[in-house]
Amino acid sequence: MSLEAATIVLVGTTHSGNIGAVARVMANMGLSRLRLVQPSAAIDAETRARASGADHVLDRATVYDSLRDAISDAVLVVGTTSRRREARRRVFDPASAAAALLRESGSSGRPVAVVFGRESSGLSNAELDFCHGLVSIPVDAAFPSLNLAAAATVVCYELRRHALEPGQSRASADEEDPATAGENEHFFDHLATVLGDLGFTRGSGSEKLMRKIRHLYHRAGPSSEEVSILRGILSAIEQSYRK
Amino acid sequence: MSLEAATIVLVGTTHSGNIGAVARVMANMGLSRLRLVQPSAAIDAETRARASGADHVLDRATVYDSLRDAISDAVLVVGTTSRRREARRRVFDPASAAAALLRESGSSGRPVAVVFGRESSGLSNAELDFCHGLVSIPVDAAFPSLNLAAAATVVCYELRRHALEPGQSRASADEEDPATAGENEHFFDHLATVLGDLGFTRGSGSEKLMRKIRHLYHRAGPSSEEVSILRGILSAIEQSYRK
Repeated sequence: MSLEAATIVLVGTTHSGNIGAVARVMANMGLSRLRLVQPSAAIDAETRARASGADHVLDRATVYDSLRDAISDAVLVVGTTSRRREARRRVFDPASAAAALLRESGSSGRPVAVVFGRESSGLSNAELDFCHGLVSIPVDAAFPSLNLAAAATVVCYELRRHALEPGQSRASADEEDPATAGENEHFFDHLATVLGDLGFTRGSGSEKLMRKIRHLYHRAGPSSEEVSILRGILSAIEQSYRK
Repeated sequence: MSLEAATIVLVGTTHSGNIGAVARVMANMGLSRLRLVQPSAAIDAETRARASGADHVLDRATVYDSLRDAISDAVLVVGTTSRRREARRRVFDPASAAAALLRESGSSGRPVAVVFGRESSGLSNAELDFCHGLVSIPVDAAFPSLNLAAAATVVCYELRRHALEPGQSRASADEEDPATAGENEHFFDHLATVLGDLGFTRGSGSEKLMRKIRHLYHRAGPSSEEVSILRGILSAIEQSYRK
């Protein structure tokens, strides 16, 4: 992939300076697509100062109301978390995350995204559920609190390191198109409808159940064609009980 | 080596905040030996604020009059430079530098050092000459100016990544039980029955379809619990069309 295909998504950033520091290191590492989801800080003089000339990144940055919209074009979305392990979810280290992002982006440069949460509290569980995989930077447990710009530095550096690697595994030409986050969400909507109709998701456990299914699904990383198959099955189920 | 054996040496730092940011990321990555050579900035309130609690690193930091003294105990000294190539000198990328530092430090933890120059002008040629090797971070030539803390982040991260590598195989004690092949096959049998009942797998394409679903499923690598959830859904579907 070209590094241009990698989007950095910052959710609810509270310090305007951090947006600038992230823009700077993105430019250092050859990235330029920055998206801000409900930022609590504006792009201001402090942002520009910390960006130290990376104005092309800031000027192209786009603001979104929802994370779902900000990542809808991406074929792989990785969310940053301080947790090392998460039951039944892929938790990448930064090197593996970069390799996976490059692989999914492929030679045609399909969009991929890395999502960073708030300085104080990171990403919510609901936000992490939108992500296909998680990435955790292996910090010392005795002093784990990583600055937002430092986390972005590690991730952008790993993306660049892997992109420059001569022997990087390029996606083969006949590889199937991975599903976009938008296609995935349509599948989840469809599945929720069917499970609701079947009475399978009723009561208090249903949210937890859907989360488990999401995690299982994201681990598989379906292609567009595979999502079509799954949605075809859902449609067949609907027809059977509507008869 | 233990990461304790790695010393970060900052030469002529001009912004006190940067010293704090470096201390913070050192602590994140498990390093704690910081040396300052003729700093132009003091350890002040701004330093403490940016260190964000990494006071144990700042409190242990020692100040030197000369780079030569600051590195005298190290068995390998690597100096950071923006130049990619230097006649007759080893220029490491950060990963190779980390590997070399760990190798030289050895299991007995002999001291090694990484030297960072001034924010504006880096290290002088005389200072680089004290270094046994050079390390260059592979930034984009169009926007090469890397923040001092960002450079330290990359180097400290690589040291940590390499130090963790041998034992990196993730402990799986708290991981859920993966499903057995038998459980998987029962799921496929069940699924085939339901899809047949629904008329979804009819005719020549059905074998190919089941294979595609198998591949998708195996990529996800479900746990026993997840297979139970999926089979519960299949049972609910069966009940709906048998009504």
